[in-house]
Amino acid sequence: MNLLEQNTGLYTDYYEFTMAQGYYLVGKASAPACFDYFFRSNPFDGGYVIFAGLDDLLTAVEHYRFGAEELEYFASLGLDPRFLNFLKTFEFRGTITSVREGEVVFPMEPVVRVEGTIIETQLIETILLNLLNFESLIATKASRVRIAAADKRVVDFGLRRAQGLGGVHATRAAIIGGIDATSNVSAAHSYGLEVSGTQAHSWIQSFDSELAAFRKFAEVFPDRTYLLVDTYDTLRSGVPNAITVGKELEQAGKKLLGIRLDSGDLAYLSKHARAMLDASGLSYVRIVASNQLDEYVIRSLMEQEAPIDAFGVGTRLVTGQSSAALDGVYKLSAFDGQPRLKFSENFSKITLPGEKVIHRFFNQDGMFYADGIALASESTLGVIHHPMFTEARSSLKGHPSELLMHTVMDHGKRLVSASVDDSARYARTRLAKLHAEHQRFENPHVYKVGISDVLLKMRTELINGFYENHES
Amino acid sequence: MNLLEQNTGLYTDYYEFTMAQGYYLVGKASAPACFDYFFRSNPFDGGYVIFAGLDDLLTAVEHYRFGAEELEYFASLGLDPRFLNFLKTFEFRGTITSVREGEVVFPMEPVVRVEGTIIETQLIETILLNLLNFESLIATKASRVRIAAADKRVVDFGLRRAQGLGGVHATRAAIIGGIDATSNVSAAHSYGLEVSGTQAHSWIQSFDSELAAFRKFAEVFPDRTYLLVDTYDTLRSGVPNAITVGKELEQAGKKLLGIRLDSGDLAYLSKHARAMLDASGLSYVRIVASNQLDEYVIRSLMEQEAPIDAFGVGTRLVTGQSSAALDGVYKLSAFDGQPRLKFSENFSKITLPGEKVIHRFFNQDGMFYADGIALASESTLGVIHHPMFTEARSSLKGHPSELLMHTVMDHGKRLVSASVDDSARYARTRLAKLHAEHQRFENPHVYKVGISDVLLKMRTELINGFYENHES
Repeated sequence: MNLLEQNTGLYTDYYEFTMAQGYYLVGKASAPACFDYFFRSNPFDGGYVIFAGLDDLLTAVEHYRFGAEELEYFASLGLDPRFLNFLKTFEFRGTITSVREGEVVFPMEPVVRVEGTIIETQLIETILLNLLNFESLIATKASRVRIAAADKRVVDFGLRRAQGLGGVHATRAAIIGGIDATSNVSAAHSYGLEVSGTQAHSWIQSFDSELAAFRKFAEVFPDRTYLLVDTYDTLRSGVPNAITVGKELEQAGKKLLGIRLDSGDLAYLSKHARAMLDASGLSYVRIVASNQLDEYVIRSLMEQEAPIDAFGVGTRLVTGQSSAALDGVYKLSAFDGQPRLKFSENFSKITLPGEKVIHRFFNQDGMFYADGIALASESTLGVIHHPMFTEARSSLKGHPSELLMHTVMDHGKRLVSASVDDSARYARTRLAKLHAEHQRFENPHVYKVGISDVLLKMRTELINGFYENHES
Repeated sequence: MNLLEQNTGLYTDYYEFTMAQGYYLVGKASAPACFDYFFRSNPFDGGYVIFAGLDDLLTAVEHYRFGAEELEYFASLGLDPRFLNFLKTFEFRGTITSVREGEVVFPMEPVVRVEGTIIETQLIETILLNLLNFESLIATKASRVRIAAADKRVVDFGLRRAQGLGGVHATRAAIIGGIDATSNVSAAHSYGLEVSGTQAHSWIQSFDSELAAFRKFAEVFPDRTYLLVDTYDTLRSGVPNAITVGKELEQAGKKLLGIRLDSGDLAYLSKHARAMLDASGLSYVRIVASNQLDEYVIRSLMEQEAPIDAFGVGTRLVTGQSSAALDGVYKLSAFDGQPRLKFSENFSKITLPGEKVIHRFFNQDGMFYADGIALASESTLGVIHHPMFTEARSSLKGHPSELLMHTVMDHGKRLVSASVDDSARYARTRLAKLHAEHQRFENPHVYKVGISDVLLKMRTELINGFYENHES
């Protein structure tokens, strides 16, 4: 059922194949290359990203193959038979070094490094970008919803307006970012998530009366009844009928679990519904609210002290509104043992050359202080420079540090396999170490990320070399 | 390879199963039901929607099954064994009536009607909403890009930032909306689309010089060389090197097809690049531009008369920015032969009851004039009422009309199969009949959609019945 366990070779931009054929035919098939995955800005005008998609990526890379059908298709496109013969036995045998899934990361950081032959590192570009960009976007969105909802339960209801069947990855990422459960059966089945769901308006409408619809649902599911109370009139019909059924369940020795509000003013309705339930001795009945929720609406409901016990969040969560995409890129940082950079007239787009690592520095209280990007060959880091305004620097003396990146695939052999629960737990512990100022929705404080002396020197030399070549 | 040809039964919200089990256990398994798919507002602050996703939906419905693995999973969730036994042989045997894929449609119109048993019509809700909402969103976005680009070639480059593997549906929909080709190999293969792609910056960076990289690419692909000219310095390095290779190709009896600009000011760079190419006798070399394009940026480039021959459009196309989702819903309109509506304190959300059709009325010049929603039992339509401010009405006398909806699946048997080309062609011919005022990006003129006398009367009676039941 997991889409990524099938031949994933076609989830690719066509230029990866034309380039791969080019490398093959010019005799560079086994030239070593190193690529970095990084993003340039935080989505949602926020202050951080929750990195997600790694486990799906490793699954996709493990299954990156070309079967007879794919090869026949390539032949029909006019690709070279010698290259197609090479693809027949192609498998990714490269090495991937990455931060952990669930890590809190920041712009410019090379969070994933892919090393191998130029062909294998190039071919996986598109699926890597697709999965990491999307899942990191949604995990980050979910973490914001989690922040707003504090310790209230949050359920993903988004599949119906997700962007196609990729909704399964949205749900996976949402759980990593802090959502508790999902309505998405496919995602729950593929990833072992808690699934949730009761009834829609159509159930209510299909009976002659709302009360009959409620009674029948309680009869079929006496131990798990939530009732949707807004089909006709929430406070004059839905809640009174739910109370009637709640009392009937009590007489049968059962309990009504909750009611759901899916329209109208959720603050107003939840307060009145709560009062009506309490007045009937049903203070244990929970109130679930849904309808166009996101972190801002939930924050507003919390500020109004709306007595809502659980939130159902859909479209805006699974599509990552209002950002829609993380701007992650995959750039060549070394080729044939030599560091490479992409120059740009837009200086913020000049890439960082060489094989790099990320050092994270902590305050004495264990909170994140700053991150330093350095070459893998550097053993210690005493100072970091601002990546663009390089005269600005910060001393890291006295701050304990750790390396954030680990080998997750070694010459094609997968070394790690994180469950969604593992990654969600890790995200939670890491976000707890990020100061609240960086988590703020409005104008978050910018987390400090710098580059090492040695990396700065390498970049300067490559840029100077570029000017020498191009200034006439 | 087509994801929708596998068992698609799990692409569902869990409440569809709890409701289905409920219907089964209360003895309503074969009760007849009718659902409408409609949306409430046009995306992108636009004036219309291009309906897409129907062909994928029919494929998904044909393959809507539950295998042993799925049933075992449901058993683990505690669903009833009798219901699971029923699901074992479940197939959709209902009837689907729909407007054609590629049709121009408007808010409130019941563009798809699903009839069958309550269980089968309910179970397919989520995948129907997922595919129709997403593909219609992207087809509509693509049609806006097409309007801006006039007759210039437009290629989809979006897979790397699409929302997961659902990117294949985005590409399909983009072609229906008017995009010419795609970089997405999986979508091209699944749907028979034209695929396109040449090289990334990494190809250029992997050689010791840009000129060497260009030469090698031209050597491998002498008949299809496009050169990416912005890796180092577009006008001082990229274009001069492309001209050198263009002249070398001429000497070999070949032609350089084009150059691609992927950063910087595309108007400025394209004008200068064009002048440099022309001055070198390479006026046949085309200029392709990409980088964060959408309908607004393309319109601006066209207004500046930037000499760009083709546009590559990515993220903003395949994620449907800035709307991210079409707000389509699926509502019960009849049950057991009786019309049903969902009441709402938000009057714009009160649904239209009964089995309905859409009449489209034309002006004498063949352009669309107005649409009327009527009951299927009505033979003619002389007047339509505004769906909310019902005293306002329009006469349709003298306007020729046609019925927009057709049976596309009859008791489980699929009757139509539209290729992407068919649907794209149809969308083009239909959009040509929509007045330009409705296609305008800013404050488009609202197209007239009304309801028939008979439908209005049915709704009024049901609403009156509701008040009588709930006014105490």
